[in-house]
Amino acid sequence: MSQPLRVTIWNEGVHEKTHPVVQKVYPQGMGHQIKSYLDTVPGIEAIAVAQLDDPEHGLTDAVLEQTDVMTWWGHTAHDRVDDAIVEKVYQRVTQQGMGLVALHSAHYSKIFRRLMGTSCSLKWREYKGIGEKERLWLVDPAHPIADGLPEYFELERTEMYGEHFDIPQPDQQVFISWFQGGEVFRSGCCWHRGRGKVFYFRPGHETLPIYYDAHVLRVIANGIRWAAPTRIAGGIRRDNTEPLEAME
Amino acid sequence: MSQPLRVTIWNEGVHEKTHPVVQKVYPQGMGHQIKSYLDTVPGIEAIAVAQLDDPEHGLTDAVLEQTDVMTWWGHTAHDRVDDAIVEKVYQRVTQQGMGLVALHSAHYSKIFRRLMGTSCSLKWREYKGIGEKERLWLVDPAHPIADGLPEYFELERTEMYGEHFDIPQPDQQVFISWFQGGEVFRSGCCWHRGRGKVFYFRPGHETLPIYYDAHVLRVIANGIRWAAPTRIAGGIRRDNTEPLEAME
Amino acid sequence: MSQPLRVTIWNEGVHEKTHPVVQKVYPQGMGHQIKSYLDTVPGIEAIAVAQLDDPEHGLTDAVLEQTDVMTWWGHTAHDRVDDAIVEKVYQRVTQQGMGLVALHSAHYSKIFRRLMGTSCSLKWREYKGIGEKERLWLVDPAHPIADGLPEYFELERTEMYGEHFDIPQPDQQVFISWFQGGEVFRSGCCWHRGRGKVFYFRPGHETLPIYYDAHVLRVIANGIRWAAPTRIAGGIRRDNTEPLEAME
Amino acid sequence: MSQPLRVTIWNEGVHEKTHPVVQKVYPQGMGHQIKSYLDTVPGIEAIAVAQLDDPEHGLTDAVLEQTDVMTWWGHTAHDRVDDAIVEKVYQRVTQQGMGLVALHSAHYSKIFRRLMGTSCSLKWREYKGIGEKERLWLVDPAHPIADGLPEYFELERTEMYGEHFDIPQPDQQVFISWFQGGEVFRSGCCWHRGRGKVFYFRPGHETLPIYYDAHVLRVIANGIRWAAPTRIAGGIRRDNTEPLEAME
Repeated sequence: MSQPLRVTIWNEGVHEKTHPVVQKVYPQGMGHQIKSYLDTVPGIEAIAVAQLDDPEHGLTDAVLEQTDVMTWWGHTAHDRVDDAIVEKVYQRVTQQGMGLVALHSAHYSKIFRRLMGTSCSLKWREYKGIGEKERLWLVDPAHPIADGLPEYFELERTEMYGEHFDIPQPDQQVFISWFQGGEVFRSGCCWHRGRGKVFYFRPGHETLPIYYDAHVLRVIANGIRWAAPTRIAGGIRRDNTEPLEAME
Repeated sequence: MSQPLRVTIWNEGVHEKTHPVVQKVYPQGMGHQIKSYLDTVPGIEAIAVAQLDDPEHGLTDAVLEQTDVMTWWGHTAHDRVDDAIVEKVYQRVTQQGMGLVALHSAHYSKIFRRLMGTSCSLKWREYKGIGEKERLWLVDPAHPIADGLPEYFELERTEMYGEHFDIPQPDQQVFISWFQGGEVFRSGCCWHRGRGKVFYFRPGHETLPIYYDAHVLRVIANGIRWAAPTRIAGGIRRDNTEPLEAME
Repeated sequence: MSQPLRVTIWNEGVHEKTHPVVQKVYPQGMGHQIKSYLDTVPGIEAIAVAQLDDPEHGLTDAVLEQTDVMTWWGHTAHDRVDDAIVEKVYQRVTQQGMGLVALHSAHYSKIFRRLMGTSCSLKWREYKGIGEKERLWLVDPAHPIADGLPEYFELERTEMYGEHFDIPQPDQQVFISWFQGGEVFRSGCCWHRGRGKVFYFRPGHETLPIYYDAHVLRVIANGIRWAAPTRIAGGIRRDNTEPLEAME
Repeated sequence: MSQPLRVTIWNEGVHEKTHPVVQKVYPQGMGHQIKSYLDTVPGIEAIAVAQLDDPEHGLTDAVLEQTDVMTWWGHTAHDRVDDAIVEKVYQRVTQQGMGLVALHSAHYSKIFRRLMGTSCSLKWREYKGIGEKERLWLVDPAHPIADGLPEYFELERTEMYGEHFDIPQPDQQVFISWFQGGEVFRSGCCWHRGRGKVFYFRPGHETLPIYYDAHVLRVIANGIRWAAPTRIAGGIRRDNTEPLEAME
């Protein structure tokens, strides 16, 4: 427990290059804004911001091997993520227990959809480009991801995501969002997949300063802690096994 | 499958006697309105409307023994329900598999709270006596209780119930409500308890004609079917048992 | 409810051609043995036995469109199942609500693994070719798949499957198996995936007469009923939506 | 995260006074044996061993107020635990987030049954007084309670507990036990209840040295960490609330 959790922040990094509003909101890129927060959190060490345009999308074997939890933000270029890299991340989660925190439009990323087994589609609305109000209600106040949060918090302007969100029933449901325009959304969802844990957290539209919000950042840090790897002594055998004792 | 499900509708029946608006909305009582709908549903036989003021609250051994599923509506007189009757209903659910469909303010009934093990408290608002808009979103379109329903349906005027709803995590979450005033609520929730099934369904404020709404009624009928008893051959032993074979 | 559930039985059908013991146990093929049972079950209509070597593996659009629930048995030739057919079955389950009952070694089929998102690996033992005893314990006696079953039933000789079974946490756990040689296994598991339901049931080793066992057959029929499609009125939109009302 | 978790160990403490075998196995009492282990675990501070015969069963307001997680072992004297004390523990768990780790025969304690809402009955066998072999299989290797454990561990001699265990479906299932005599059991089960977490762990028969086993002790320590309280900023309102904004 005494060693810090090593976190790699994967950020698509395309909107920051092409969209003036995003450039203005996140002059260093979204990933670096998240890192600048995590750098202040005791027990968490943000070891890398990896981006689509980096060699191997920044997810080399060396980076993966020292990553305990990975956060993932992508939107406009999901299909440009190399299948071989996705496979490595998938194996690292399910076989070695790396945690994955999927943010906002990462609901449609290759890695999240593969782990879920469903389409992960949803409704959405970028209301006249200005967003609308969202309230995130805490529905499981015993959950560690709720630690330090109030019973609800608000984002004054955000993109809407609405049900039906085509995901497997979450193992644990932490937040449900209310949107001004008439929708609800399962905004904070937890699953175990193989040896790893997956947390999906909804907020994060790129043209709004969502990753400066103190509540949002707190949830991300809590989600990283929740997704910390579990060590299994001796590994898990999956093979043709001998019986406990002679059975004749 | 060929015999109809025998349903007993438990209705507190107090507001109908004391509140002019409720009398006007439900001149025959809420229970009888629900019964009049169930009488039209193939495969369901509403055998009784039982009320608080009936002898043994209408829940005699004879009634219980022929009841496959019970619906329960109560609000103002939860504490007047006799503990011995509650115990009988509890045993019938958990030990013999009777289904229970808990409606609206039955969240605070003795039987529901005992089955849940939590306080079942929530937020509420009867907005200036006129209600506000509710949208019930379907979040599990594979669930049999969703059968025949659209992806969402609306109640133009209703009482608000809001999170945090202090219930155990539902085994299955079917509906989540959106309210105009800023809240969300887990409105359709399923649990197994012992040999029985429990479905909680939120709508049903007594001063509004909720139980005339076609979608609401459809959900109640679907919930009754979902809660049908499961027969176990030979029962379940809970005792000091012999080992499979000599083990020396 | 009055129309029978239309079931397609998918059977790999390779062992029956190549393995003398399997030929002896299932002279008509495993699929036809399951069909001969389902033909006796009221409310279920087994419309087709489809096999790997049939054109399009027997899963033409015409067959898929009239299938409410599909059972799937495969073992030695998972990789010979065409990806395009798997995609069609996947879409039929998740987008149109077809039920899938995955039997025994179908845990490693392409369709099951895709729906789960995990490796679906496990331990196994075909003990000296003669099998060992399995006891299937009912852990959720309220579940409709348990209907008519006793609190446990035994298979005198079977192949062992053992934990860790690398699946997502089941939405509902119906059976857990005990094996003579020292293992346990989650033998009856339910999930919702998109609009469809998936039931995994463990028994079914090809060299033993498992699909003649009355309890096993009963579970398969119950699983088919549980997996029946749910109809959603008007479908589910997944798109850029308009708000409920003007919000300015 | 830097302050240690304060743990109170509740131990019935009756067998130790009346049963020579138990006296021999646990000369200081079971609670003190568990404490002597917890005293070696970084981040955990065992602040008290409380027993039935202590004033207020050792669970004074002062003790409760400084307890983050409570372990509970009881067997022969469940009905001698005062209802008012049970109520205090219940409130502390559900309203203030104290964790509860229920050990072995605590399945029948007043506090556990109240939190579950079911009978919590099961099968059992103290095989000729000598016990039989148990294997605890890990079925959720991503779960923090599995940390540091192997894929299974064995107790050479133990009392058998068998299904059907009449509990609500666990929110998370960590271990499933295999017993030599033919039974299985859900041995490590997690639930959230209100603001608190509940972990049930099966091993612990009083006449056998179960609480000296390194794996068992590790699970208890992990369970305590998992059950740590979650802090909610500003608490949770459960009342008649005002709407978000004027809605006319």
